[in-house]
Amino acid sequence: MKPFGFLAYPGVEELDLVGPWEMATMWRDYADGPDCVVVAAQPGAVPCAKGLSLVAQHGFDDAPALSALLIPGGFAAFDVMKDAATLDYVRRVSEQADHMLSVCSGAFILAAAGLLEGKRATTHWKAIVPLREAGIDVVEERFVRDGSVWTSAGVSAGIDLILHFIAETQGAEAADIVQHNAEYYPVTPPYGDLHKGEGKPAYMQRL
Amino acid sequence: MKPFGFLAYPGVEELDLVGPWEMATMWRDYADGPDCVVVAAQPGAVPCAKGLSLVAQHGFDDAPALSALLIPGGFAAFDVMKDAATLDYVRRVSEQADHMLSVCSGAFILAAAGLLEGKRATTHWKAIVPLREAGIDVVEERFVRDGSVWTSAGVSAGIDLILHFIAETQGAEAADIVQHNAEYYPVTPPYGDLHKGEGKPAYMQRL
Repeated sequence: MKPFGFLAYPGVEELDLVGPWEMATMWRDYADGPDCVVVAAQPGAVPCAKGLSLVAQHGFDDAPALSALLIPGGFAAFDVMKDAATLDYVRRVSEQADHMLSVCSGAFILAAAGLLEGKRATTHWKAIVPLREAGIDVVEERFVRDGSVWTSAGVSAGIDLILHFIAETQGAEAADIVQHNAEYYPVTPPYGDLHKGEGKPAYMQRL
Repeated sequence: MKPFGFLAYPGVEELDLVGPWEMATMWRDYADGPDCVVVAAQPGAVPCAKGLSLVAQHGFDDAPALSALLIPGGFAAFDVMKDAATLDYVRRVSEQADHMLSVCSGAFILAAAGLLEGKRATTHWKAIVPLREAGIDVVEERFVRDGSVWTSAGVSAGIDLILHFIAETQGAEAADIVQHNAEYYPVTPPYGDLHKGEGKPAYMQRL
């Protein structure tokens, strides 16, 4: 199987990328998942939103063909969505890959590349209104699949998204193995009522 | 407040470190939490377990005084627990910091430094038996605090641990703000029955 790719760019939100990365590499190691690669405009260190720095293994020019590309978010996504080289790369990948995924405001990069036209999608709760204003059919769920396009809510929601992706594309048994090795059995209820505020997405209102 | 530190070492498991890092830096940015720093034996790139590389801002010699140190896990922790320089650094931090935390097999580094003596602690489900055999009072919960020592189960459990840490040390309101910004409202139930197997920790059996 062709590798599963993760897009990195300066200002990418750390957990948006690393949450799904951890799950995907456990899929690779324990359940016959694909190899995983980080791709950025150029190979090398990429400074993240909160002060970490990640190293991209490939640049746009030397990246291998991918089975899927996951686009993480961060405030910087609102700049990256205007970057012609990134949009060109994302479009090129979409023409040969089986699946395109986004986490958080990564959905705006997919939208700017024209890949959310006619698709249901979601994003961070803070960005639902602007994504709707961009003409996208935004659903208020933690993640949603519409054909070959998979999008999730903010930051940590990428973990739930990729487990769903593994379950749908390979089967629940593989997702169970990954979840078990990553010990992803969260026990944290909401610490307060912020998720119940006006305009918050429907899935939060149901918590 | 003195910074919150994250220990990095070659082979550290990506999400063990980055999950709590994301939450702690949101605490810093949105709820008056401390600054956050990554410390390794030397500053610079640190290769992780699954192929990512993170950049440590400080080495043991130039690291600032810390309010807390979080020690992530990974299979490499079983080597690092024998490394004199790391144990010396961890002990030095424990003498001046208010709190010591571990995720996953990071508990074995705390134990090797003598910091789990007489403490209740936990670790990845795969490592409960060896941690017990090392003489530690292992509890089968997703995370546990015993005084100034906070430990969690495997990989993703560090996210639940640090939200608990924020709630206990600053208040539930701060934890709510962090959780809300990171959109940490998981919806993923177990995909199968692996968590119910014989010898699995009590908190998993209750799921």
